Formats: sequence, C-alpha cells, structure tokens
Amino acid sequence: MRKIVVTLILTAFGFISSAQNTDSLMIRRVADEILINSKAYDNLRYLTKQIGARLAGSPGMVKAEQWGFKTMQESGADKTRLQECMVPRWVRGGRDEAGITSFQSTTEGVGKTKSERKLDVTALGNSIGTGPKGIVDNVVLINSFDELEAKKDQVNGKIVFFNYKFNPAYVNTFQAYREAGQYRTHGPSRAAKYGALAVIIRSLSGSTDNNPHTGMTDYDSAYAMIPAVAIGLRDADFLSDRLANGKVSVFIRTNGKFLPDTIGHNVIGELKGSQFPEEIITVGGHLDCWDNCEGAHDDGAGCVQTIEVLRAFKAVGYKPKRTIRFVLFANEENGLRGGAKYSEEAKAKGEHHIFALESDAGGFTPRGFGFVVSDDQFKKIMQWQKLIAPFGAADFIRGGGGADIGPLNKAFGTPLASLNLDSQRYFDIHHARNDVFESVNKRELELGAVNMAALIYLVDQYGL
Amino acid sequence: MRKIVVTLILTAFGFISSAQNTDSLMIRRVADEILINSKAYDNLRYLTKQIGARLAGSPGMVKAEQWGFKTMQESGADKTRLQECMVPRWVRGGRDEAGITSFQSTTEGVGKTKSERKLDVTALGNSIGTGPKGIVDNVVLINSFDELEAKKDQVNGKIVFFNYKFNPAYVNTFQAYREAGQYRTHGPSRAAKYGALAVIIRSLSGSTDNNPHTGMTDYDSAYAMIPAVAIGLRDADFLSDRLANGKVSVFIRTNGKFLPDTIGHNVIGELKGSQFPEEIITVGGHLDCWDNCEGAHDDGAGCVQTIEVLRAFKAVGYKPKRTIRFVLFANEENGLRGGAKYSEEAKAKGEHHIFALESDAGGFTPRGFGFVVSDDQFKKIMQWQKLIAPFGAADFIRGGGGADIGPLNKAFGTPLASLNLDSQRYFDIHHARNDVFESVNKRELELGAVNMAALIYLVDQYGL
Repeated sequence: MRKIVVTLILTAFGFISSAQNTDSLMIRRVADEILINSKAYDNLRYLTKQIGARLAGSPGMVKAEQWGFKTMQESGADKTRLQECMVPRWVRGGRDEAGITSFQSTTEGVGKTKSERKLDVTALGNSIGTGPKGIVDNVVLINSFDELEAKKDQVNGKIVFFNYKFNPAYVNTFQAYREAGQYRTHGPSRAAKYGALAVIIRSLSGSTDNNPHTGMTDYDSAYAMIPAVAIGLRDADFLSDRLANGKVSVFIRTNGKFLPDTIGHNVIGELKGSQFPEEIITVGGHLDCWDNCEGAHDDGAGCVQTIEVLRAFKAVGYKPKRTIRFVLFANEENGLRGGAKYSEEAKAKGEHHIFALESDAGGFTPRGFGFVVSDDQFKKIMQWQKLIAPFGAADFIRGGGGADIGPLNKAFGTPLASLNLDSQRYFDIHHARNDVFESVNKRELELGAVNMAALIYLVDQYGL
Repeated sequence: MRKIVVTLILTAFGFISSAQNTDSLMIRRVADEILINSKAYDNLRYLTKQIGARLAGSPGMVKAEQWGFKTMQESGADKTRLQECMVPRWVRGGRDEAGITSFQSTTEGVGKTKSERKLDVTALGNSIGTGPKGIVDNVVLINSFDELEAKKDQVNGKIVFFNYKFNPAYVNTFQAYREAGQYRTHGPSRAAKYGALAVIIRSLSGSTDNNPHTGMTDYDSAYAMIPAVAIGLRDADFLSDRLANGKVSVFIRTNGKFLPDTIGHNVIGELKGSQFPEEIITVGGHLDCWDNCEGAHDDGAGCVQTIEVLRAFKAVGYKPKRTIRFVLFANEENGLRGGAKYSEEAKAKGEHHIFALESDAGGFTPRGFGFVVSDDQFKKIMQWQKLIAPFGAADFIRGGGGADIGPLNKAFGTPLASLNLDSQRYFDIHHARNDVFESVNKRELELGAVNMAALIYLVDQYGL
C-alpha cells in the first residue's frame, strides 16, 4: 500500500513537474519574443508622439481608436472590432488657464509692498470654468477635511486651498495617492458645502518639480459646482508659506465645460479559443488619457503591453484554449463608460467571463499582481508564482483589479487582476505634462508585457 | 512536562517575537527619518552639480574628498578621517577625441561615392591615445571572441570592431553586462595579440540612445597596448550594417595617458560601538567616477546613501553596539586602490571586520541583497528577511559583495553584501554622459538608504 501511495505521489509529482516544465518553457519563449522582438516601445512612440493627448470624445481619441484597430489587426487578432459607447466630452476650453497669487511682502527700507507670483495651475478634469473674467478672492488654507470642518465658518465666499500632502513614509506611493486623492475627488464639493467660491488643491504627487497634476473631480449634486484647480508642489509650498504670514489672494481663470456626450469606442482584438471558446479572458488597458500630456505611462503603456501580449502569442504560434480578448478601453479617466459598456454587452450576450487583467499603473518594472479572487482561486494562482517570479512580478497579493474591468466583477463575479509595478516614479508624472514617451523605459515596459503574457497563458491553460 | 515545554516554547517565541517587534519599530523609525527628512538627494545634487566628474587623482576627486569629509562630520560621525592611498592618474587628455567612419555609398544616377559619418566615441578608461594624428584603417567586424579566433589572420594591421551585443533576454541586466563586459576589459589585448592597431567596442548597454559608455580596459602585458574606444549603439548598428556592404575605414583620435600616481583618500566616518567597539561593520560606496559624467548613479548614489544611514542613525539617537564605519572609497573605477588600502590597514592594525555592505549598482528602487556568507550566516540572515521586506529589498540571494569591500573578504573572510537594485535602467546611464543627477529619483535613492540602514542595524544588533 505504502509503495502504491508513494508511486502515486511520485507520478502525480512527475506529472505536475513535467507540466510546469512545459509551462516554464512556453513562458520563456514568449518572454524571449517580447524582450528581443517587442513592438511595444515603437507602438508607444507612435501613440504618444503621433497622436498624443486623447481624452474621451476628443479628436485625439478618435485617431487613437483607429490606430488601435489597425495595430490590433497587424498584431494578429483573429477578429478586431470597435465597440461603440457614448462618452462624456469634457473640454478644458481655451489656453488661457491662469493662476496668480497676490500677497504682502516686506522689502527692507521700503516696507510692505504688494507682490504677485504666477502659479502653475491646471483645472481639474470635469470641473467647470470660472468664466473669462476669472475669480479673485482671499485664500483659506485647509490641510485636511478635519480642518475644513473646524474652519467651516471661515470659507464662505473664499477660495479654499487644500494642502494635503502625499505621505512620504509610505513605501508604496499608491497608499499616499489613495489618502490624498479624496481632496481632488471630493474637495470641491466639500468646500462648496460651506460656501467656498473655488478650490485649489495641492497636486497628488510627491515629486521634486512644480508640474500641476490634473485628474477627475466628482461634484456632489447637493452642492454648487465650483471651479477647481491643482497647483504644483513648489507653488503649494510657496502659497502655504505666504498664508502663514498673512492674507493672500489668488486669481484663477479656468474654462472647463462639458459638451454633449459623443460616440467613443473600446477597441477589441480577439484570439478565438480552440477548446473552450465560450470562456473569455480579458486583458487590457485604457486608451484615453488626460488632455495635458501624452499619456505615456497612463495608460499608453497598458495599451501597448496588451497589444504586445497578442503579438507575442501569435509570433510564437500559441493557440489559446480559451478566447482571449485584448481590449483598449475608452474613457477610464473621466467616466468609465468604456468598461461599463464592455460589461453590459457581455451581460446582454450571456458571455462567460472567467478572468480579466488590467495594466493601468504605468510602464515601470513589474513587481507583482493584485488579485480579486476567492480563497480557492488564490491558492491555485499561488502555485503559478514560481513560474512568473523569474520575470519580476513575484509579489502576488489580494486586492487590485482595475477600473475598466471592475464592472465584469460586479456583473459576473469575474476574477480580476491588476499588474502591479514599481510605484516610486508613477506620481511624478501621473496626469501631468511630463507623462511623455521619454519617461518610459523600453525594457521596463516590455517586462510588464512579459509578466502579463505569463499570467494570461497560465489562466488560459488551467482556468480558474 | 508537556506544560513546561509549551511554556518554554511560548516564552522563547514571546522573546523572539518581542525582539522582532522592537527591531521592526526601530527600522520603521529609521525609515521614516530617511523618507521624511533625508538629505541624500540634496547631498547628491551638490556632489554631482557642484563637483561633478571625479576620477581618481583628478581635481574633482580632491574636492569630492573634502565634501565627503565635511558632510560626514555634519551628519554626526564620532570621528572622521581621510585615509591616504596612492591612486593611478589616468587622463583622457584633450577634448578632441574623434571617430569618423568612411565608406562607399551608392547614390542613384551618381554611382558609388565616398561618404563619411561622425561616430560618437569615448576612449576606454586606462587606454593609451592614438597620438594627435590619430589612426585610420580598415575595420574588421568581430561579433565574439570565437569569431576573433576564426578570423585571427584578418586583423593584423587593422582596426577591430567588437560588436558583441547586450543580451536583451536576460531579465537582470547585470547578466548581460557580465557577458559583454569582457570585450571592454580584454578585447583590446585579445585583438592586439593578432596585430590589430586599435579596437572599437560596442558600448556595454542596451539603451535606445547613442551615448558611448566608457569604463576600464585591462591590458595584458604580453601584448602591445593599443588604443581603444567605445561607440554608442546606434553608431555600432550603423557600422555593422556598413561593414556588411563592403569596406569601411575608421579614423580614431584619442589622447589617453597615465600621469604619475598621486595621492588620493578614502573618506571614513565612524560611529563607535558601545558594547563591542572592536567589532567593525563597514558600509560604503565609491566616491570616484568616470570623467565623462556626474557619476550620479555610479556611485554618487552609494555615497550619499552611506552618509544618509549615518545621519539617520544619529537623528533617531541610535547608539550602535558595534563600531560602524561609513566609507567613501577612492578609485573603484580604474584601480581599486582605495578598497585595497582599507583592507591593508585593517590587517596591519589587526582589526576585526565582521561585515561589510556596498551600494554600487545605482540609486534605483532596492530589490534585495546579495550575500557572500557561509550557510549558517545565510540562515541567520534569512530570519531578517521579513523585517526588511516591507521596504523593498526582500530578495536575499547568495553572491554579491562589492569591488571595494572584496579585499576585506579576501583578507579576513569578512561576510559581505551588495545592495541589489532594479537593474533595468542602470546600463542606460552607466559610465555615460547621461549619468547625471536628473536621472536619479529622490524616493528610489532614499529607499536604498532605508534598506541599507535596516540591514546594518540588524547586523549591529545580532552580529553574524
């Protein structure tokens, strides 16, 4: 009996070992294809330099969709299509956004004089404009929502400056972003509740430069919609220093507004499954980006990595068992209509979505994956860790997913994953004018695609 | 009995757990000090922008030593000193290094014409110059040492172009560097053996730009010393393409030479141990850098991190049990005289060196440590992994150390470690003109110091 058990164990072990060896070889083959012959970097150059900014509904996004469609076809998709969805059309409006701060300064021998300094401002996404004359008023410094509550009687008719800082003690910068992020999302309405005229926020960044970072604000319909801008970190430090020394007024002019909703598209390439074609695996990034940058890391990287996984699978002749969809989502930044549409149609068609992976944290060195899965699924996934570890994304954690694939999880309970990357540089460039092609490293970008391909391959082979 | 055993186990467990908790708190405290109040980035700015290039024996290195001494004192060292050592004094000599390639090109309607193209060249460190008139000759393309052996009869009186490429399939770029590195180190003498007049190497890099990368070549005294340059990757591709189409000649002019050895110094700051002052722990980087760059990553980063560990220990009031030496080594790049001197003096004085750590792989995000230790020591070290992992350097591997601390291991068997960092960007800038302050990210740099401090703290607490 003992002998039989041992034999059985050895056989089972041999089987697993041989399967893992096959997997290891296939992943290495795909990795080599990407690291040696990748088109991801050239594709990113085109998307950022030839197309550039591409907010939902903008002419740039239309061009990007056409590029995505063509590139998906050229990369070997069995089927490529544009999935129509209505998207919001927020425009910054005009090039004369401005911020000027006025304050008393003391010059020796002269006494107090009025000084001015230009602030580098960017209107928050989805925010309303001030009108062409702008807004001038005194500024109230607020370091936190608690402080806002304490000073709620002082903000009526004033401009509120939320100076909440990125916490540098967090090793993962996304923690700092999550904390500070609420000032961009909810700050304007929280201040409007107490009668503020406009809001300035300290950019959601820990960078050493002064670039302002935009990103969506989310008005609470219970309160007045008031203009809102972000300023760079050096300006924020300057403003808070000045406010510590006396009254400061700021002039802001912004021109944001919504035009009517317009037609946008998710770009979908597909490799049909050979054994279980009805089981769908989705891998994607979002094609839209803010209007003030090239969207190289956010999320050009995720798009070209997605296409690269497709290209590499085809190049090595990999025939997936399950159907793999490569999706460039529309409108992640200011509406999530692309992700919503993808899930709605899946539901209407009764599709079976077994897994979705999104790359939307930049084109930096991969560190791991964040999984939204059951305990049993996570156990299964952990067995794959050693196959992926050689390529860098060894840190498998619970929690993650992605904004565009979230609706699949809500609709079907589809297991999700996010590609997690080295986070140190991300908020230096996130939603800022320096999110450009030059800030992306070719190999880091490619390694992201390698790890995505490895995970997708394993899910395709073994399901969840 | 069972109860006693359980109690003993619980007690032991409680003790370990409480010690680990104390350690965890202390490491977190040091980490916060560094991430919130670090001076590493400002120190690096000064070293790179105010001092800049600092090859051994150069005026820049003298300034850097003075800066290091002063900064070590200001950061709280109990004792600071300059440890004298003789260093080589190689100079590039003159600013008119040049490379021009001449080849036949075919223009429609005109026929074959002679064309020229400038090459971006840099003499290899320690190489001899061509003389002011330069060298012009036909080029022989050699892709590997094997090919050199096969073509050894064709290189006499010619210029050999070693076009060995970085292997992009390696995930860790240091693997590619180790393979390709031998062409820089040994290529010139290997070619001289067969009568070559000069050597051009493809830069040791996988970058997307055309910057040439210098670095030390090591002449074999058995053969003639011949001039040697590196060219950038785009030029290397151009040259090999041209060579595939016919004869190509290249003009090279370099002016490298050795001046007499001169006096250099290791900069040593010390915190005296309170319990075991005779047990010495060394942590360091090297202060010298190549003359064509600011040496920001290589190894300004290691230097300011070393000083930052000192500053942070003092700032949180940590009193080490053992003596900790913070060392900025002289002359790592082209002679290793600083590291040799440090070890020689230690031997002469009968010092007891229990551990040494070097940071010399750039200021990128820390990924782990490479240990040169015994099996038992490694087992002990692995128990610390979970204390360091939250700060990023979780990947503990065997093998590593550092060029400057290597002699300690040879002399005393001292256990060594290297700080291992994300390697993707390193060889984009290594020994090239773009190794400048701007290529270093503040947080990545600081996280390196955090992880170094954590390891040094643990070795100080528990020894090896």
